Amino acid sequence: MSLTFRRGLTTMASLKKASKVVCIGRNYADHITELNSAKPKQPFFFLKPPSSIILPGEGPVIRPRGVDMHYEVELALILGKRVRDHDASDLQGALDAIDSYALSIDMTARNVQNEAKKKGLPWDIAKGFDTFLPMSKLIEKSRIQDPHNIELYLKVNDEVRQNDSTNLMLFQIPRILSDISKVMTLEAGDIVLTGTPKGVGPVVPGDVMRAGIRVDGKEIEEAKIEIA
Amino acid sequence: MSLTFRRGLTTMASLKKASKVVCIGRNYADHITELNSAKPKQPFFFLKPPSSIILPGEGPVIRPRGVDMHYEVELALILGKRVRDHDASDLQGALDAIDSYALSIDMTARNVQNEAKKKGLPWDIAKGFDTFLPMSKLIEKSRIQDPHNIELYLKVNDEVRQNDSTNLMLFQIPRILSDISKVMTLEAGDIVLTGTPKGVGPVVPGDVMRAGIRVDGKEIEEAKIEIA
Ligand SMILES: [Mg+2]
Ligand SMILES: [Mg+2]
Ligand SMILES: [Mg+2]
Repeated sequence: MSLTFRRGLTTMASLKKASKVVCIGRNYADHITELNSAKPKQPFFFLKPPSSIILPGEGPVIRPRGVDMHYEVELALILGKRVRDHDASDLQGALDAIDSYALSIDMTARNVQNEAKKKGLPWDIAKGFDTFLPMSKLIEKSRIQDPHNIELYLKVNDEVRQNDSTNLMLFQIPRILSDISKVMTLEAGDIVLTGTPKGVGPVVPGDVMRAGIRVDGKEIEEAKIEIA
Repeated sequence: MSLTFRRGLTTMASLKKASKVVCIGRNYADHITELNSAKPKQPFFFLKPPSSIILPGEGPVIRPRGVDMHYEVELALILGKRVRDHDASDLQGALDAIDSYALSIDMTARNVQNEAKKKGLPWDIAKGFDTFLPMSKLIEKSRIQDPHNIELYLKVNDEVRQNDSTNLMLFQIPRILSDISKVMTLEAGDIVLTGTPKGVGPVVPGDVMRAGIRVDGKEIEEAKIEIA
């Protein structure tokens, strides 16, 4: 990946060259309740294909025919180095492994996912449609001193639907990186989505989603997503 | 991907740079029966992370603690171009989109997968451990005139466990590429696993898997996998 890094900061275009996008499910208690899901004893995760990524300006999100499409706003980590068997108690090591952040919307075909859950089938179709991963610009690491204490929000047509602090994560970043990297080695440039707070819901073509991050009540410009 | 292609042939090292690995499930009737699964009305698929790939000589496959590890021998397609919304009736177009073939073993943590199925959770952990995708050398396209009429085999410690023709596929390659590419755009270099015939089963450390492809009864040298 060295060619795609510039002064230690991943470039936006390189996001689409991620060797994988790994997403944590059910990582905020209230979101679990709203989906009637069981609270996991350990983080579980799934993949989204890099082909689902859309960068700022590349919208809109395209709703596949017959799909009940839901937004899930999530903090994304962009890794700066290979991570394998990370120690869950090592916060500093986890932060050191992060190159930069981004905001992301884990778009989900909820009806397809519910059907898959019922039949015991994989989630990859429900999560993997083209345009199902809008991302913000890259956020320099220095802009987020404590990733476990920032506010994520998402509005649909200016109505606030999600707005919670990352301090509500059930499993924090060191544990997330530990559990993932004990299964699959994370590479520099890989993207990790850390789960969504409560408030997920449907959007239909024409709806405008606006999402962002606040640190100490102050909006981070690069984190803004605005997409139809 | 143009830099990693050499006279139209993907290089072996470039396999690990695939932007995704997409795998068809339940694509041979007898394999469905042996797992007590429902026969799908349409192909379904899931992702394996490129980090699970091991090339010839890079073994062994590593069994994670507590995992009941199964082999599934599968014909792999390596795409030579971008594919989107492929027409399921277009055989020639499907073959034209293929750059080369490989043999692969879709290693599966069967107990983890069964648990996931029961709980309606994603398959990505069960399918995505490091070393869970042994691949053969690349097979030039000209070596396989008809990918729907070749023999796949897998032996464990010289005992034949899988041995069937790809003419038993429920959904053939044009249909597979159609269904996948209507969800997610396939990119040049992407890898598609086409499903496994009957005979899957467990291996434990120390077992040696040997797999290969026969065309008209004749072994293809490049397709051979031998891995502990
Ligand atoms: Mg999510
Ligand atoms: Mg992937
Ligand atoms: Mg398989």
